[in-house]
Parts: sequence; C-alpha cells; structure tokens
Amino acid sequence: MRIPNHIGLIPDGNRRWAQNKGFEKQKGYEYGLDPGLQALKLVQEYGIREITYYGFTTDNGKRPRKQIDAFVKACVDAVNLIAKENVSLLVIGNTNSTIFPKELLKYTNRTNIGNGGTKVNFLVNYGWDWDIANLNTKIKNRKSIMDGLHSKDISRIDLILRWGGRKRLSGFLPIQSVYSDIYTIDDMWPDFRPEQFHNAMKWYNNQDVTLGG
Amino acid sequence: MRIPNHIGLIPDGNRRWAQNKGFEKQKGYEYGLDPGLQALKLVQEYGIREITYYGFTTDNGKRPRKQIDAFVKACVDAVNLIAKENVSLLVIGNTNSTIFPKELLKYTNRTNIGNGGTKVNFLVNYGWDWDIANLNTKIKNRKSIMDGLHSKDISRIDLILRWGGRKRLSGFLPIQSVYSDIYTIDDMWPDFRPEQFHNAMKWYNNQDVTLGG
Repeated sequence: MRIPNHIGLIPDGNRRWAQNKGFEKQKGYEYGLDPGLQALKLVQEYGIREITYYGFTTDNGKRPRKQIDAFVKACVDAVNLIAKENVSLLVIGNTNSTIFPKELLKYTNRTNIGNGGTKVNFLVNYGWDWDIANLNTKIKNRKSIMDGLHSKDISRIDLILRWGGRKRLSGFLPIQSVYSDIYTIDDMWPDFRPEQFHNAMKWYNNQDVTLGG
Repeated sequence: MRIPNHIGLIPDGNRRWAQNKGFEKQKGYEYGLDPGLQALKLVQEYGIREITYYGFTTDNGKRPRKQIDAFVKACVDAVNLIAKENVSLLVIGNTNSTIFPKELLKYTNRTNIGNGGTKVNFLVNYGWDWDIANLNTKIKNRKSIMDGLHSKDISRIDLILRWGGRKRLSGFLPIQSVYSDIYTIDDMWPDFRPEQFHNAMKWYNNQDVTLGG
C-alpha cells in the first residue's frame, strides 16, 4: 500500500454539529479533541511521518467573541493532549497578536516529546498571506520559495483530509498544497470515525502522483 | 440562483481518454477544443464574468516531445477559437522560454475582441513558483500580495471545475484559489457535456461563501 508521507487535516463542521445537536455553536469545538487524538494514533499506526492540523486562522479571528474563546481553548487543549504522545511537535502561526495563546509559545520551536518520531504541526492563528509575506524574491527556485515561507518547517503535503463536507482549502498552506490530493468527508468533524480515515487511505492508494508533470 | 463571478477550468484527462479509445496519448488534446468553446458559451449564458482555463504548465514541459507539441498546438488552436468570440482575452505564462508559442504573444496584454465582455484568461506555460517569484515583500496586505503576482490581472476564483476525476489543484493559481470551491467531474475532458456544467452550478448554489471567516 502506498502511504502518504505527510497529511493535512482540516477538522471542519464543529459549529454545524453543535447546532444539529441543539447546542450553542461554540460548544462544538471541545467535541473535536478526542477525534484529533484518534487521528494521530491512526497516523502512527499507518507509519505516516508528518501530520498538520488546521487549528484556527487569522480569518477566524473575525468571529463572535464566544466562538473565538472556545476555538482558542480547544486548540490549546488539543496541543496539550498531543504533547503527551511520542511526537515532534511544532505550533506555527502569527504570534504577534493577542489572539495567539501564550501557553503555546513554547512549541513554536519544534520540540521532541517522549520518543519523538511523528512530526505534528498545528496551525494556530495562521494566515496564508502572513505565510508568504516574507518570501525572498532574489532567488527564485522552488527550494528557495519554500525556505522563504513562515511555514518553512512544514513539508509538501501529499494528502489533505477535510471533514464537514466543504470542498475547498480555505487558505490552508497554499504552497505546500499545490500538488496535494484532497479527500473530503461529508460528516462533521466531531462525528469522526476511524473508518473514514481508512477509506481515505484506500482512496489515496489508487491515485497517481505526478507533481503536476 | 447564486452565480460565481469567476470560474477556473482544469481540462484534465485528455491522454487517458485517448488511451481508452486506443489512440496514442497525445491524440487526446485536439478533442478538447470543442469542449472549451462549449464551456465558454455556457459561461456567457450564465452571466459569469470571468473564466480562467488551465492550458499547460512549466511542469508539463517535462513530458515527451510528441505530447508537448500536441498540447502546445491545442492551446494555440483553443485561444484562436476563443478569439473569434466576444471576449476580453488574456494569455498568462512564462514567455521567457522556447516552449511559449510566439503566436500567442499578442494576447499577453488583455485584448478586447468583438463586443468584449467576458474576461477569458488562458494559462500558457504557467508555473505556480514563477507566479509568486516577484512578490513585493515590503508591503504585506492582501491587495499588495495580489498586485505582486505575475497573474495580478486574474481575480480571486469562486469555483474551480476539474474534469478527469483527480481531486487536486496541480499548481493552478495557488493565491487566487485559497478560498475557491472545487468541483470535480469524473469524466475525461473530451467527454464534456453541458449537463456536467449545469450540475456544477447547482452544486455551487448550495455552498456558503465565508472567505475563510
């Protein structure tokens, strides 16, 4: 079986899930914590070497205060859960903003935890424009473009999994995603089931990799 | 009905279509010409104001010579067909290469034809890295990022239609595509039917537009 080197994970649908349950919208985020950990375990079982979670973005900062507080807390809690596993952990995002949680500053340099191993990147207050704003325009090959990104420690992504039914990237790492296969799951993120992940791996196994060639 | 302002079109699957017919791979491209014109007519019927066709890329230049000759010819022929319609035509790509067809240089400045109207952009020898290589790193808002692209005359894309079954962007305008909805059609591009286009419009009508917010 062909295993992706690096998967991106877009855990969308938390608010719609909460509404469907009759909860307030912001209540959905905390139900995404356990799925995040389950996905990490599956990544490790498959031998996938790197995973990047789409936490929250500079765009998300325009939402109502109650929602912001809830998704920031969920991201802090998620990173703290991941930090109990054997991972090489990196939090990436714009730290020059009060919305960036101070508790996560310590992970903005890659940190090996336990036996290390799986690279786990977590995007916190990430913006696609922030990411490319410092590109070095003097040297113009692909390597130097990657090296000019704020997210330069995140490698090219082979497969993106998006829950919540939307078929879009929503600003997720535009440069690392240029050649990614995109697999979407109609269920909302809190309704994560391992079977969805297995199906994505089976689907990926049947794609060809051309890197645009 | 909610109509996209700008659609991107990725006409993939020409070579697989040719193989399925028992033709040589490069024979498929010429069967994509009529579909391209049909798509333009539909764009105009729906009142969509801008369409961008993914012609060929710098990545594609690594293919066998017979294929290169065939897809370059198909792009020249496609642009010449479009240039008989009422359009505002722009060809965008890296012209500093012998692979860029001289016949299309005249359209690298936007040209109004007939009554003008629909903006039609056609990517020829386009590269995502070439596109972002000259970004102005001094001014860092989104407008200035867009203005720093080689493709600055191409606006944000609302909806991308991809034929040929693959679920990926393959380097297509990474900045204009950050918030695009992506609709994929399993049929190969030469098997274009108007119904596929109508279905995409119905699907788009049911998506919400959040621009990542």
